[in-house]
Amino acid sequence: MVLREPKSMDKIPEPTLRRLPWYLSNAKLMKEKGEKYVSSTQISAQINIDASQIAKDLSYVNVTGRTRVGYDVDMLIGALEDFLGFTDKHKAYLFGVGSLGGALLCDSGLVHFGLEIVGAFDIDPNIVGTNIGGIPVYHSDEFEQRMRNDDVRIGVLTVPISIAQEITNKMIAGGIKAVWNFTPFRIRVPEHIVVQNTSLYAHLAVMFNRLNAVIKKE
Amino acid sequence: MVLREPKSMDKIPEPTLRRLPWYLSNAKLMKEKGEKYVSSTQISAQINIDASQIAKDLSYVNVTGRTRVGYDVDMLIGALEDFLGFTDKHKAYLFGVGSLGGALLCDSGLVHFGLEIVGAFDIDPNIVGTNIGGIPVYHSDEFEQRMRNDDVRIGVLTVPISIAQEITNKMIAGGIKAVWNFTPFRIRVPEHIVVQNTSLYAHLAVMFNRLNAVIKKE
Repeated sequence: MVLREPKSMDKIPEPTLRRLPWYLSNAKLMKEKGEKYVSSTQISAQINIDASQIAKDLSYVNVTGRTRVGYDVDMLIGALEDFLGFTDKHKAYLFGVGSLGGALLCDSGLVHFGLEIVGAFDIDPNIVGTNIGGIPVYHSDEFEQRMRNDDVRIGVLTVPISIAQEITNKMIAGGIKAVWNFTPFRIRVPEHIVVQNTSLYAHLAVMFNRLNAVIKKE
Repeated sequence: MVLREPKSMDKIPEPTLRRLPWYLSNAKLMKEKGEKYVSSTQISAQINIDASQIAKDLSYVNVTGRTRVGYDVDMLIGALEDFLGFTDKHKAYLFGVGSLGGALLCDSGLVHFGLEIVGAFDIDPNIVGTNIGGIPVYHSDEFEQRMRNDDVRIGVLTVPISIAQEITNKMIAGGIKAVWNFTPFRIRVPEHIVVQNTSLYAHLAVMFNRLNAVIKKE
C-alpha cells in the first residue's frame, strides 16, 4: 500500500506558505484561551483574510475540519507545525559572526521553529574557539572537515557583502543545499540550490519610505 | 521657486524599493574594489537583473549616469543611502525583550541603516532597569510618559503572539506611526499606520519546504 502524501506538497504556492504561519499563531492563541475548536470563519474574523482563502490554504495541510465545529485546535497546531517543518530539526551552520550573526546565534527562538544552528564560522581570532549563545565558533578553514561529520544542509549567511558571493560558493562546494541570506547582497547560486533572502535593511527601506509618505500627508 | 522633488517618491513600487538595496550593496562593493564609475550593465552582469530594469529603478533616485561611463560610484552610494532613508536617524522603541528582541538590541548594524533603537520595554523585573546592547530597558508602564519626551515614530514588535495585538494597539494610541512586526501574528492596524512584517519563521517555513522538494528530487 502506498501512503497518500498531502496534496502535492512541493508545489504549494509561496503566498500560501507565507500565510500558514499566521493560522498557526492564531490557533496557538485560541488554544491559550482554552478553545477546543476553531473554524476558518473565526480565524478570518481575527486576521482579516477571506475565510474561503483560509480553507483553501489549509487544504494543502493534512487536517480536516468538521462542519459547524471547525478544526480541532490541537490537531490543527500539530498538522501546521509538521507541515511547515517546525517539528523537524534542520541543522544549520552560520557564516560570519558579526553583529547580526552573533545576534542570531543568541536567538533561541529559531530552534523552536526547527532551525538548529550547530556551529558558526568566522576568521576573527578573538571569537574563533568561543561559544556564543551556546554555539561553538570555528575557524572558516574547518568548514569542509566539519561538513563531513555533521549532517548539515542549511547555511545562514551573515558575512560582509564583500565576501558574500565567495562564501556562498564555498558553502555550496562543501554540500550546503539551502542558503538563508541575511546580507543585502544578491547572491547567485546554481539552479538546484534554495535561497531565502531576508534582508532586514530592505525591509527598513520599505518601512522608512511608507512612513515618510504618511508623515507628509499629515 | 518650488524645488522639484525626485519623481513621486511616495509612489515608488515596492519591488523597486526592494531591489534598490541590492544596487547599493553592489555599488559599495565596486567602491571597495577601487572603481570610480559603475554602469547599469555592470551591475546587471553581477546581480542578474536586467540592465533596463536597473536603469528604470534608478530613475526614481536623484542620480544621473553619464553615457558610456555610468554612475559615479560615490554619488550613487550617497544618493541611494539618502533615498532609502539610511542616512537619516529614525528613532524607534522595541517592545518585548525576549530572545529575538534582545538579539535585535545587540545588532549594531541597524543603526548604520538608519534605525536607532533608543529604548526597549518589557515587564520582566530581571531585565527592566538594565541595558542591553547599550539600550535601556524600561517598564512597559513608562511607555506613554517616554513617548512625550522622545521623538519616536517607529515601534519594533517582538512580544509573544498572545499580546501582539494588545501591544500594537497601545503603541498606536501612544503615537507610534510605523510597526516593524517580527511576530508571526498578523496584526490589525488603522489605515494610516505603516506595518512592515518580517517573520523569520515564515521565511524558515518557505526555505524548509523548498529544501524538502530539492532533496526529494535527488
